[in-house]
Amino acid sequence: MLLTRRLWRYSSVIPLHSTPRDSVRHYASTVSVSDLLDRKDGDLDNVIVNGYVRSIRSLKNISFASIGDGSTLEPLQALLTPQQSQRQNTHSLSVGTAVRLSGSWQPSPNTKAQSHELHVEGVNVVGSADPTTFPLQKKYHTPEYLRTMPHLRTRTPFNSTLLRFRSESIAQVTQYFHERRFTQTHPPIITSSDCEGAGEVFSVETAEEPPAKEGQDVTFFKSPKYLTVSSQLHLEALAQSVGNVWTLSPTFRAEKSDTARHLSEFYMLEAEISFEEDMEKVMFQVEDMLKNLVSALNRSRVGKDVLYGKRPGDEPGQAAERSKELEERWRGIIRDSSRWPTITYSTAIELLQKSPREFEHVPKWGSGLQAEHERWIASTIGEGGPVFVTHYPKKIKPFYMLPSNTLSNHGETVDCFDLLLPEICEIVGGSMREHRLERLLERMRTSGLIDPRSDDAGSLRWYIDLRRWGSVPHGGFGLGFDRLLCYLTGEQNIREVVTFPRWHGRCDC
Amino acid sequence: MLLTRRLWRYSSVIPLHSTPRDSVRHYASTVSVSDLLDRKDGDLDNVIVNGYVRSIRSLKNISFASIGDGSTLEPLQALLTPQQSQRQNTHSLSVGTAVRLSGSWQPSPNTKAQSHELHVEGVNVVGSADPTTFPLQKKYHTPEYLRTMPHLRTRTPFNSTLLRFRSESIAQVTQYFHERRFTQTHPPIITSSDCEGAGEVFSVETAEEPPAKEGQDVTFFKSPKYLTVSSQLHLEALAQSVGNVWTLSPTFRAEKSDTARHLSEFYMLEAEISFEEDMEKVMFQVEDMLKNLVSALNRSRVGKDVLYGKRPGDEPGQAAERSKELEERWRGIIRDSSRWPTITYSTAIELLQKSPREFEHVPKWGSGLQAEHERWIASTIGEGGPVFVTHYPKKIKPFYMLPSNTLSNHGETVDCFDLLLPEICEIVGGSMREHRLERLLERMRTSGLIDPRSDDAGSLRWYIDLRRWGSVPHGGFGLGFDRLLCYLTGEQNIREVVTFPRWHGRCDC
Repeated sequence: MLLTRRLWRYSSVIPLHSTPRDSVRHYASTVSVSDLLDRKDGDLDNVIVNGYVRSIRSLKNISFASIGDGSTLEPLQALLTPQQSQRQNTHSLSVGTAVRLSGSWQPSPNTKAQSHELHVEGVNVVGSADPTTFPLQKKYHTPEYLRTMPHLRTRTPFNSTLLRFRSESIAQVTQYFHERRFTQTHPPIITSSDCEGAGEVFSVETAEEPPAKEGQDVTFFKSPKYLTVSSQLHLEALAQSVGNVWTLSPTFRAEKSDTARHLSEFYMLEAEISFEEDMEKVMFQVEDMLKNLVSALNRSRVGKDVLYGKRPGDEPGQAAERSKELEERWRGIIRDSSRWPTITYSTAIELLQKSPREFEHVPKWGSGLQAEHERWIASTIGEGGPVFVTHYPKKIKPFYMLPSNTLSNHGETVDCFDLLLPEICEIVGGSMREHRLERLLERMRTSGLIDPRSDDAGSLRWYIDLRRWGSVPHGGFGLGFDRLLCYLTGEQNIREVVTFPRWHGRCDC
Repeated sequence: MLLTRRLWRYSSVIPLHSTPRDSVRHYASTVSVSDLLDRKDGDLDNVIVNGYVRSIRSLKNISFASIGDGSTLEPLQALLTPQQSQRQNTHSLSVGTAVRLSGSWQPSPNTKAQSHELHVEGVNVVGSADPTTFPLQKKYHTPEYLRTMPHLRTRTPFNSTLLRFRSESIAQVTQYFHERRFTQTHPPIITSSDCEGAGEVFSVETAEEPPAKEGQDVTFFKSPKYLTVSSQLHLEALAQSVGNVWTLSPTFRAEKSDTARHLSEFYMLEAEISFEEDMEKVMFQVEDMLKNLVSALNRSRVGKDVLYGKRPGDEPGQAAERSKELEERWRGIIRDSSRWPTITYSTAIELLQKSPREFEHVPKWGSGLQAEHERWIASTIGEGGPVFVTHYPKKIKPFYMLPSNTLSNHGETVDCFDLLLPEICEIVGGSMREHRLERLLERMRTSGLIDPRSDDAGSLRWYIDLRRWGSVPHGGFGLGFDRLLCYLTGEQNIREVVTFPRWHGRCDC
């Protein structure tokens, strides 16, 4: 204690508490563009704004600069004198320049364009941007071009909006589950299961070591390990401990596909509901969560930016058309609190077969639904909104799904559901899980997951354990989070809603 | 439209909306143990509880069962008749059995132990647990034993509490940053940078392909890729787009260490603050967040479970002792809203050298602080609470840190800080970042990150780009989330707060 006292005397010579608590108000003295744009009443002096020049237009006696800081899609209009705009310590206010502007916030004479504008008094160039090299000049860039520079493209107004939209969505689902006492978990990324040996997994090695060879014990973890393809099995273990659980975790697939819907690294929102026999309850959980999410987004600023904002390359009228389409999508999810339609796989197949529409793949009971089938179901049964398809044939679904009690006319089904959305098709897959030990073992044996000679389930041994003691009925689902963001934003390509997208042959930065 | 109508007629034969909205009240008719324990007023009939038998004690005319469902550490006491407890469809109510109990919630005659108890009317064994094989019998199991079965150990009351404690912490930090308009991001897990070639990274391959060899182009992503060791560099890119950003992401280190503090897969909470010259503001952000988090945890039920609950293996009096210790830790963080102490590295070295204490490693300016030094600083300067150590020597810190303006007597330093906590030492590392292009290139050249012959920064080329256009002063930090949970819960080993821990040689499930 004496020592401590003495040290405190020593430490008085160093800047302990050198920042008084008040100094954090500094944060408030600078204001974000979004907050400033919301101030539509009267004048405001001594405003400081940090941001980047999006464009600048110089007339003889005045310059108009558009300033963005990533807080909103809409830019701030700043008025500068020719002297202010042209040279600031030898830096010009070209596009991409980082500036700190001070001035007054005054009503605009042209209130159609904006209610107020910033009359600049001081300009501080924080970071210059050489206009001869800066790759994001104010003009249309194709998404493909922007994708070659993921570290820069989020600086464009709409890409930064997508970033904030993801953030708002994460916060809202987190709050949703927290309020409903689902336990949020961090299931493992490196796992032992290679997903039924499908080969479409990434394996994990230390950089210095040779790859795992069968029978050899030279790897970091003693045996081959993989990047997770789904957290479901681990979530099932946790649901038996704390009840309902969820996660929003990175998931990996080494698929060599080059489509607008697939990534090698993506986020899955997965949940498991414990002590539940009724699949309707699990489906309701999906529906309730998405309705809550979209309602919250609809109230948010970034939601409005997504619904009504202009985007690069918009043709005249295109923004209005897109707004209408997106409003319909969002409304289709919220649906005035009436429940989403549900159809069984068997009925869907019947309807597909009866449909006058000709499909490339003939709809047939026992085969998976093709994208064209799913699109047809979403547009007709779903009336352009979400639709659940339930009870798929057992033989085309994984071993862990619970067989249905009632038989279809065609064959055995499982208690499972897919949620289809127009355009992007399947976005959620869920099911009740086989919780009975003997039945599970049977399914694993017929699925080839248990070695018939040794009767060993290898890396899935632990999963079987979950059914040995205190096993309870449960079900869950996985939602493709990036695909959902595509649907809600109207982005055609999943590579747009992911900041640093990874796919076959591409992993920049 | 006509087609759609027709389909709706079709679909009326299938169970559309078969679950009326009201049916979700079913969730409310069963009640969690934590909610029931909170009902301390009067009686309550027709209660249904789902849970697992933690223990059962049978007297001649009555049996007492402890029931847990993972919603709280405290068990529910259920009273059963011998008939109810002994045989339920040939299943006994042994430890681990999943049950659905119905009955009435009545005041307990022994209100010291608990205010109410459940008088059971109906017992439904949902999932039996063979007492001859169930590995989690009610007795003390060592953490090492439980670690051999991560898929089961969360069923023990205290491990499930740790799971909920993590969940509550995630929800609170998410809300904290959301309210302060930090954008939550999902930086990539698979990255191009091998962390300055340190060799302690995991590489990512497809399971079917040979490993990457220099000059060969056979890998899935065309060139070698690694699991991220930090999201900082990517966050810096995003902070230049949307301002302040944060993430809570999995991070990987292929260190071959077998200690209580290290894992191969762990979660880092990282944030970057944009347009900021003042490191005090970045440090304040760390402090303010942690104070908010601990205050929120202190108000939560799971916080009370952690602070005051009994744990397996507790000796008499140990729980009370631990509660006192943990209360001090939590109070030390909240600290009656006075600021945490700060000391410069240089002053810390001076004090260490003047200290009468003998250290194994002699404290010396220019060398890193050893654990024994950090512990001494935390206990003396930090008075057993958090303490910031700032301005470390430039030569022992990474290339991206901003050199300090003021020189120390001993040599060059950087604007950086570590946050030390007693026992677990460093929990946060942060710094201002070098945002000036030329200085950054200089540092990267002297650090060997730019090939002197080709003047190429290889996989870090994109990071240099961030300084080329509109570069602004910024700083950020990374917090070891799992270590923080260790500190707040008093767990000695990081493998306890992670559900499926991975370390050298171990990756179960």
